[in-house]
Order: sequence, then C-alpha cells, then structure tokens
Amino acid sequence: MGKALIIGAGGVASVAIHKCVQNSEVFEEICIASRTKSKCDELKDQLDGSKTKITTAQVDANNVDELIALINEVKPDIVMNLALPYQDLTIMDACLATKTHYMDTANYEPEDTAKFEYKWQWEYRERFEKAGITALLGSGFDPGVTGVFSAYALKHYFDEIEYIDILDCNGGDHGYPFATNFNPEINIREVSANGRYWENGEWIETEPMEIKRVYNFAEVGEKDMYLLYHEELESLAQNIPGLKRIRFFMTFGQSYLTHLKALENVGMTSIEPIEFEGKQIIPLQFLKAVLPDPASLGPRTVGKTNIGCIFRGKKDGKEKTYYVYNVCDHQECYIEVGSQAVSYTTGVPAMIGAAMILTGKWDKAGVYNIEEFDPDPFMEELNKWGLPWVEDFNPVLVDDESVKTKELELVR
Amino acid sequence: MGKALIIGAGGVASVAIHKCVQNSEVFEEICIASRTKSKCDELKDQLDGSKTKITTAQVDANNVDELIALINEVKPDIVMNLALPYQDLTIMDACLATKTHYMDTANYEPEDTAKFEYKWQWEYRERFEKAGITALLGSGFDPGVTGVFSAYALKHYFDEIEYIDILDCNGGDHGYPFATNFNPEINIREVSANGRYWENGEWIETEPMEIKRVYNFAEVGEKDMYLLYHEELESLAQNIPGLKRIRFFMTFGQSYLTHLKALENVGMTSIEPIEFEGKQIIPLQFLKAVLPDPASLGPRTVGKTNIGCIFRGKKDGKEKTYYVYNVCDHQECYIEVGSQAVSYTTGVPAMIGAAMILTGKWDKAGVYNIEEFDPDPFMEELNKWGLPWVEDFNPVLVDDESVKTKELELVR
Repeated sequence: MGKALIIGAGGVASVAIHKCVQNSEVFEEICIASRTKSKCDELKDQLDGSKTKITTAQVDANNVDELIALINEVKPDIVMNLALPYQDLTIMDACLATKTHYMDTANYEPEDTAKFEYKWQWEYRERFEKAGITALLGSGFDPGVTGVFSAYALKHYFDEIEYIDILDCNGGDHGYPFATNFNPEINIREVSANGRYWENGEWIETEPMEIKRVYNFAEVGEKDMYLLYHEELESLAQNIPGLKRIRFFMTFGQSYLTHLKALENVGMTSIEPIEFEGKQIIPLQFLKAVLPDPASLGPRTVGKTNIGCIFRGKKDGKEKTYYVYNVCDHQECYIEVGSQAVSYTTGVPAMIGAAMILTGKWDKAGVYNIEEFDPDPFMEELNKWGLPWVEDFNPVLVDDESVKTKELELVR
Repeated sequence: MGKALIIGAGGVASVAIHKCVQNSEVFEEICIASRTKSKCDELKDQLDGSKTKITTAQVDANNVDELIALINEVKPDIVMNLALPYQDLTIMDACLATKTHYMDTANYEPEDTAKFEYKWQWEYRERFEKAGITALLGSGFDPGVTGVFSAYALKHYFDEIEYIDILDCNGGDHGYPFATNFNPEINIREVSANGRYWENGEWIETEPMEIKRVYNFAEVGEKDMYLLYHEELESLAQNIPGLKRIRFFMTFGQSYLTHLKALENVGMTSIEPIEFEGKQIIPLQFLKAVLPDPASLGPRTVGKTNIGCIFRGKKDGKEKTYYVYNVCDHQECYIEVGSQAVSYTTGVPAMIGAAMILTGKWDKAGVYNIEEFDPDPFMEELNKWGLPWVEDFNPVLVDDESVKTKELELVR
C-alpha cells in the first residue's frame, strides 16, 4: 500500500520496524536511515526474508538538504521520525519541501534549553495545510496512546471530560541495584525538574517529586508514583473542551530515587567537566560508562508496564469515571521483537500512526496532535498489534482517601 | 632533650609536628622527611620562628638503604613513622640497622592484602630487644590512647577487666551531602568489611554493619554506631589478662552509609579499571576527583569527636564499670593547628608517644604495643597537650536494654 522512510535505528525504531514488517500489507517498502548506516543494515539483516522490501541509507538528520535529497531518492509516502526530538524541525522542513507526510513520537526541544513545548512544531500548521500534507505529532504511548484514549473516552463515554490523570507505571525489574532504561541524563532531568499540572486554565508548578501517591496497578501491584510534567498535558489541555484539570504520574522505586539522589549529591550527574589525569571529563559521561548499557537490560528485565488514563466527567448529566489502560510484559516483548516493554509501547503506536496515514484512515492536511484524529481505527489496531487495552468503569481514583492515606502511612 | 626524624607530611604528621614544636623542651630538633620534599618545606615554613630546630629531607620510605642513609645523616634519637602503614617494616629495618628508636600510629599491612595484623611487626621483637632499642606500635588515638586507657583502668581501678567496648564517635558535620575525611577507599573498606570481635578466646565474625547500637555520647548526642574490626582489638585481647570480650564500635550517619552503598552499587567504588574514551580509568580514582578534597573539610567541619573505652570487671570482688573518654572539638583543633579533630586526635598521641621515649619515661628494649607501658605519664601528657579525658563510673552500657530498645525502635 505504501512506502515509509524511517529515520532512526535505536530501540524505539527497532520495534517500529519489526511491526512495520509484520504489517507488510500496509508497509510494502521501508527505508531505514540514520547517521550510522551499519545500525540500519543490522536491523535489515535481522528481518531478512520479510515481505516488506527493506533498504537502508546514511543521513544526518540535522541537515535539511541531505534529508531532501534522501526523500527525493526514496520517494516515501511518509517520513517516520524515530530519532531524537532535536531533529523534528529539520525533518519537518524536508517534508514540506518534498510534500511528504510526517510523523514523530516526541515533540521538538531545542538541544540547549531542555524545554518541552509544542510551539515550534505548531508554527508549521499553516504551511503543512497549504502543502496538503499531514504532520502527526507524538504517536508513541505517552504522548500518543494517551491522546487516543482521551479522544476515545470523549467520543464514546462522555459529554464532557473534567479531569484526566495519566498514570505511567513501569513495574519492570532488571535485577541491577541501579540502571537506567534510557539515557540517564533524561532520567535525571525528569526526576530533578519541577512538577507541573494544568488546572482551571492555569499551569501549577510543584517542587520536584512533591506530589506522591501509592497506587495499586492492575497486574503490577502497589507502586509509588509522582506527579511530573509530560508533554501531552500541553496539547490535551487545549484539545479536550471543558477540561478542568489534567495531571501526569509516573512510578519510581525508592531505591532508584535514592541512588539517583546520591549520585547527584556527590556530583556524578554533573555535566560540568572536571580535570582528571590531564583530561577534561564530564562526570555524567563517565557515570554512563560505569552503569550497565541500557541495551543490555532487555533480556534480563521481567515484570510489566501499565500505562493508562483515568477520566472523570459527565454523561447525560451524571457523574462518570472511566479508566482505560494497557498492560505490557517485558519478557514477551523481548521474545517478540528483541526489546523490552519501554521501547515496545512506544514503537508499536509509531507504526500504527504511520499506518493510519498510509491507509488514508487519517487524512487531513496540517499539523495535528494525535487526539485530533478519529480514535476508533487506532484503538482497533492497538488490540491487533500487541497493545490490547482494558476498560474499568469503577476505578480507584488518584485522590481517593484510600490512596492518599496509604501514602501518609508509608511516609510516617 | 632529643632529636626526632618524622617521616610523613600529611594531616596526622602536620598535627604531630605542630605539637612537637609546642613541646620544644623535649623536641629540640626535628627533621621532616617525605617523598615530596616541598610538602615538608611548607610545614617548616608554617612553623618559622619556633624554638625547635627544623630541617627537611626527601626520602622514599619503601627504600631501606635510602632510609639508613638519611638516619645516618640526621642522627635522630627516634624515628616517628607518620606515613602510610605500608612502610612500617622498611622503616623498622632501617631503625634496626642504625640502632634508632621507632614509633608509629598504625600497624603494618601489606599493600595488596588489606589485612591488618600485628604479626609482621611482632616478628621484630627479638631483634629490637637485642639491638637495645624500642619500637612503640600504634601511638595514635585508636590504636593508641585506647590502649593507654586500658592500661590505666587496669592499673588503678580493676583487679580484672572482663569486658572492653571501644566507642569511636565522630559527630562532625562538614556541610556536604557526602565527603570522606580520609581516603574514600579506606572508608569504603571499613564499611564493607565483615565485623569482628573477640570473645572467650575466639574471634567472632559478623556481617558488615550487622551489629548496630544507638548510643548517647557526651557533648555529641545520640548517634548510630556499628561494630567493626579495629586493630587494637588484637593486641588488647592478648595484653589484658582475664579479658572475656573486647569490641569496637564506630559511628556512621545513615546518609553517609546510603551514599556509600549507592556508589558501591553502581560500580563507582570499584578499583577495576574501565575503558573510557580510549583510556583505562579506575572508577574509585575518578570518584575521588569528583568528591570534595579531604583537605578542604578542615575549615568547614563543626562539631566534636568523642572516643573512649567502657570497662567492666571486678575490684575487690565487686562488679565495677568505668568509662574514660576524650571529647575533641573540630573547630578548636583547626584554629590551633590547621587540622580538624580526626587528624588532631591521632597526631597529638604520636607526639606524646615519641616524648615518652625521648624523655626515658618509657624505656625498655623490644617491640611493644602501647598498653604494655606505664600509662600514668602518658595520661598526664594527654591533659597537658590538648586531649583531656573524662571519667564516668556509672556509664550507660552498650548492651543496656535502653540502648538496644532504642535501636529496635528506629529500625521499625
């Protein structure tokens, strides 16, 4: 049916590529491109014999001209940006120049500000509309599926959604006292940044890790979770009419936080170089070298993730609550595609988002966040491609007394 | 009255040298020697104008011939070994060859085994006796003053000492979330080694940090303390007749232990080199470079140390207990000699031990631990030179129910 140019060859790209190949009716041809072509070739070799035709290419995603030349050569129907979010804008520029659809899984951030905001990408709205092409922003799990869940809840179950809590739980255990799934710098930034949530039209800041709850997740059990800022809060606050509050919670284990804090305290997470044996060394870079390679965690991680949204609002004048979530097993993911659930839950929705555009199920010109499309076909595909969802119409709420009391008990 | 050759120019040596100069009637002349002569010259410059004549020299303390040549040139009455304990034997060899008295503050350990034992030095007994010279082993605080306290208790208050608990409390606060007073490698080894104590003629091993008590120290307050092995246990178990048990406890704060454990867990305390940017780097060495320089802690450390011994035994057929301890203030030490209490409490007894020999108050040929000499003149000097001691004949015991219960409460 179509051809995709996939930029990136890391964990998420690897999952998405495995899934594209499983869905070869839609993805007749893919080209895998990244800065390091050998990584693309490795992925191609793993999928040798697939129905989908696979080619590879070298590209510097920071260079618009190189990107345009590659797109002109490959002639894809869509560019799937699965590289770092620093390259979103250059790839969007190349898509505009070549009138090619675009999608990504994380919004643009300038490399030096560490500020997640949609404004840079939203500025492309008019240009994409005029060019007659689609840019689908944030088609991972969170952002991504969480937006689809929100659109689905609104379409089928609510006249008005007043409260959304997004709950992201990773109950995985890699057996190391301490290791990080992704770049430790990003993990550290998440934990040490101020929290933020949206209420009554305003952003409310919290201290880092200030708001904590102990929540009992289906198929995982009780976990400590903390209120963080996460990028989908920005678009959902705008796209869900009548919303009074939206928050995001992520689980972190006490041991993980203790290790991170200790490393921060002694200066091992600093990005200021120090002089060591006549060389300038950045402590965080050295720490990364000492920690287990994130890629080595996959085969040894057991347990499950549970990510979903709890909605509260009104239907036919009555109060209503609705919780929809996906549970994903680290080991099952690893057996299927060679990556654990953290990459899997992002890579599968990336494939589905691109499929929505290639199949014409999502077909409108402009720049859109995922909740602005019809959620139904996407929800169907989630069940089909390994991320089945569960509905609960009587969930325990984050602010229920039982949840708050539990937290107080543990603190005492 | 005499001339001392001081080997070493670190924190403890600096305190001892300041004290020798204060006691210029005994120390008419000193020569400061170390691998780095500039450090010796610095100390000499600090003490410019003192009555004691000061010279400096360069020496490699691993090299017996160099040591002999230096001793023959300087012609000291005693060699004060205030360098690392790895050089005890080479310096003792040089003392034998030149018939010069010897003293140190810590017993020999081979650099590769990390095993503290007196056996290597005790093998010199006969040779020192025949040469008519004295070797005084372990004249710091612990070992050192703790042995003098033991000899003093036995001489004046007991017919028989059955139980000794040595309590080493550092209530100092340097204001950093984490830093180490000495070489972090030694700190880490202390905490991660098995504990060990002597009871009924046998050594009993414990897990690292297995035995914990919460003790209320005079002038410091309540602190967590843990049973460790410490070198004076070996000699005191032999030299105190009738002893049933001897233990050693040291205080560590929870935050210190948490940081140390976290650093150990991630591999930052490892001494196995890792490949980093084309270079072999030992993680522990890099960690040292990131941590505050131990020398920088002196001016900012506030609070007090409290080190002493609790004795239980019999006098005239009756049960008796006796606690003798010294309290030392970090800031007062720093103002007096430019070092905080941890170096001060070791450096002062080093000077006093050497003075005992120079003045002839301690005068017997052979190799001796400090408790084998008459404690009275040493106890007098402690009061005179900045380490006054306090006696308590009704102390709270380590095994009192109140102490044990407190610990359980905190754990729960």
